[in-house]
Amino acid sequence: MVVTSEILKKRVSAARELMRRHRLEAALFFKPASVRYLSSLEATSAAVLLTRRSRLLFTDFRYLEEARVHARGFRIKAVKGRLPLALGGVLSKSGIRRLGFESSGISHAFYRLMKRGLGKGIALVPLAGDVDCMRAVKDPGEVRLLRKAARIAESALDCFCEIVREGMTEREVAAILDAHMRIEGSERASFDTIVASGRRAAMPHAKASGRKIRRGEPILVDLGAVVGGYHSDLTRTFFLSRIPPGCRAVYERVIEAQIAAIASLIEGAQAAEVDGIARKVIDKAPKVGDFGHGLGHGVGLEVHEAPVLSPASKDVLRSGMVVTVEPGIYRRGSFGIRIEDMVLVTKTGARPLTDFPKNIEEVVI
Amino acid sequence: MVVTSEILKKRVSAARELMRRHRLEAALFFKPASVRYLSSLEATSAAVLLTRRSRLLFTDFRYLEEARVHARGFRIKAVKGRLPLALGGVLSKSGIRRLGFESSGISHAFYRLMKRGLGKGIALVPLAGDVDCMRAVKDPGEVRLLRKAARIAESALDCFCEIVREGMTEREVAAILDAHMRIEGSERASFDTIVASGRRAAMPHAKASGRKIRRGEPILVDLGAVVGGYHSDLTRTFFLSRIPPGCRAVYERVIEAQIAAIASLIEGAQAAEVDGIARKVIDKAPKVGDFGHGLGHGVGLEVHEAPVLSPASKDVLRSGMVVTVEPGIYRRGSFGIRIEDMVLVTKTGARPLTDFPKNIEEVVI
Repeated sequence: MVVTSEILKKRVSAARELMRRHRLEAALFFKPASVRYLSSLEATSAAVLLTRRSRLLFTDFRYLEEARVHARGFRIKAVKGRLPLALGGVLSKSGIRRLGFESSGISHAFYRLMKRGLGKGIALVPLAGDVDCMRAVKDPGEVRLLRKAARIAESALDCFCEIVREGMTEREVAAILDAHMRIEGSERASFDTIVASGRRAAMPHAKASGRKIRRGEPILVDLGAVVGGYHSDLTRTFFLSRIPPGCRAVYERVIEAQIAAIASLIEGAQAAEVDGIARKVIDKAPKVGDFGHGLGHGVGLEVHEAPVLSPASKDVLRSGMVVTVEPGIYRRGSFGIRIEDMVLVTKTGARPLTDFPKNIEEVVI
Repeated sequence: MVVTSEILKKRVSAARELMRRHRLEAALFFKPASVRYLSSLEATSAAVLLTRRSRLLFTDFRYLEEARVHARGFRIKAVKGRLPLALGGVLSKSGIRRLGFESSGISHAFYRLMKRGLGKGIALVPLAGDVDCMRAVKDPGEVRLLRKAARIAESALDCFCEIVREGMTEREVAAILDAHMRIEGSERASFDTIVASGRRAAMPHAKASGRKIRRGEPILVDLGAVVGGYHSDLTRTFFLSRIPPGCRAVYERVIEAQIAAIASLIEGAQAAEVDGIARKVIDKAPKVGDFGHGLGHGVGLEVHEAPVLSPASKDVLRSGMVVTVEPGIYRRGSFGIRIEDMVLVTKTGARPLTDFPKNIEEVVI
């Protein structure tokens, strides 16, 4: 995406609005996703310092050249040595008395080093939830990139259906899917591609292993692509040749839960309530298995970001948020089924960003 | 790697020795690499709690099944809801008064949540450097995995020499190299594979872009594989068809710096001095460009880990450490050359884990 100066200005304004709410003279942002969001720079080690008037970007030698090219509107500060010490040094002389910082973006060790350099004159105000939400509502350009990333993930599932054969290992399949996504334009895999067959599908985050794929077993495939820094995340559970006994009822229950949850996604909905709608469907009698994880999460410059769809979530859904809806049912030692789509929340309901077939007859391959 | 119960016990003993030094009743470890090192569990969200007598592993539903299979000798605690709150709850009732924690492994926001749950009776002692060093010295099984990962990286450079052609984009080349490593047994790429040609090679951490590769330009390739969780990291700078003017002298300087640094690597050497030996070679007259980053870093379960080879490092090299040696010279807007190998530190000197050809005539392809 070409992030225009206009878009960057808008984002910086929103961040400054957050500073005003917390009565801050300045704020520091650390997460690579936040730094990229505000400045366009993609770097593993950098910090953005916003004051009421200025925009500064701290990074080291490795990223200076890219920072100069991409971070329009920013003054670039070259960091020699360790970033927390460099920040401490600059800030202690800045006259800033009340400084917010993205407390979910630095380690406690980093915080201690930075604080030591700052001296006692500056109040450090941790900003966690608020800053995490800064990137939750997507602008149209971001939605376009998420859609592109979603399409590549769908094309990887098409590829899966074409290439999977009995006797291939999960790992071989995953390697092919990852290569396919790269060729289709993905910068990397969103996360380690999951291909879990048979009883391994009962482990929600099983990696692809050396296990050979067999007929009559569920095969859970969970993958995503990255386009312009934006992540997709998509899951289907397939069956090779036939649906094993016991799976059909569980599969239908997962679909029912997902449809009910998606139907309830609309601006103003409570994330915990949406999670509860899916959970109620899954937990109704007769019990068919466990749903031990949250229903979904935001996706964007991070593959997991705000909002969170879970029983304990306090998040409220807003138009422009993009979230996954991924109910699953797991039977320990036996099998697991998860189905995940990405949807855009709007004022009138959920708009799907993924629509790969998911009726049970369509996932028998 | 099959991590035997014996090896795990040894690692846990070393961690308890660290606890004794800091007069701790218990210690918490958070980094995925540390959790894996101590318990064998590969998880993105988990914590290991060691007391003088017991070993506990906290993780959520997603990883429970894997934890039960892999984390031998550990009591598994299923976490519902957020990990920091769950830890706070358990620890506040434990009677522990002095608790160390891996402060580089959790965000400041996580720390605050956990501390809130703990109440006031427990002293929290941040362990940063000490814990970071816990994994620095490798045992023979770890060195074997690093060697395997290194061999796959070398085979990817072989692949590069075979497939690269004028007109291919950096991104196409990187995608092929990544797929090659996967097929050769790599779990994923160690980091985003760098293929930077022409003036893009002047940016030390340039990603692979849509730029087309041309004759007579340097092409910097920096990549790594992962085997059993262990990372390799290897860089060569190639030339397509011919060496452009100005590059030869710079290339020879980088090689000279690397050879001098490797010759000085031995148990007991100061990391900062080893860095200085390379830096002195690069900075000697006539000046040919900038060397703005550190000389190298440890590699293991993380691609960057202790020790650090840089001017500010306080680390001392010990037998069994595996480090990269990667001097580079960059001319802004023009070109850059970096050469990186992995070496094992021993009592008698450095033993290379990578030996891909690097004489200037051998990298003209």
